[in-house]
Amino acid sequence: MATLLQIDFPFAGPFGEEMAQAFAELAATINDEPGFMWKIWTESQSAQQAGGIYLFDTEENARAYLKKHTARLNGFGISGIEAKVFDVNESLSAITRGPIK
Amino acid sequence: MATLLQIDFPFAGPFGEEMAQAFAELAATINDEPGFMWKIWTESQSAQQAGGIYLFDTEENARAYLKKHTARLNGFGISGIEAKVFDVNESLSAITRGPIK
Repeated sequence: MATLLQIDFPFAGPFGEEMAQAFAELAATINDEPGFMWKIWTESQSAQQAGGIYLFDTEENARAYLKKHTARLNGFGISGIEAKVFDVNESLSAITRGPIK
Repeated sequence: MATLLQIDFPFAGPFGEEMAQAFAELAATINDEPGFMWKIWTESQSAQQAGGIYLFDTEENARAYLKKHTARLNGFGISGIEAKVFDVNESLSAITRGPIK
């Protein structure tokens, strides 16, 4: 069953296209993480936050990535990380066209 | 630009297929909300939480739905709702195959 990983943290920028340029190389490496399916990159300049919504094939792979990513964010000087791991309700997500593949 | 709405709250169940049966009718109505694109239904029996990841076409529509849904959840006796509204970084999400359409 697909596992959704929800991460966000305080972030002072850069946002938008500057953020995209700063993290493009990192983004490409995420595609190679075990069990990774997709990530939507989230950001809010007004709330000074950023994060991501990830889909992994299993909870084990989601938690392994969370551990790795938390250490990386800490290395960037980022703290106050909020992370939650959820099962996906496939039947309900199918009704609302949720992209869980 | 697509706007991502992230909602979760304490939830004692039902989970899984029982949850799907309890909320199937509600789920169908969400497809008719203004600007709604998709929702992934999230749940965690171990953490006793549930929620959803939504994509809307604009921040205005995402915030209007959040207001409506918060009132509905409160009506179900649910409190402790955590909600965040994010812009989507389209360039980075494209690299990691994020489904933002």
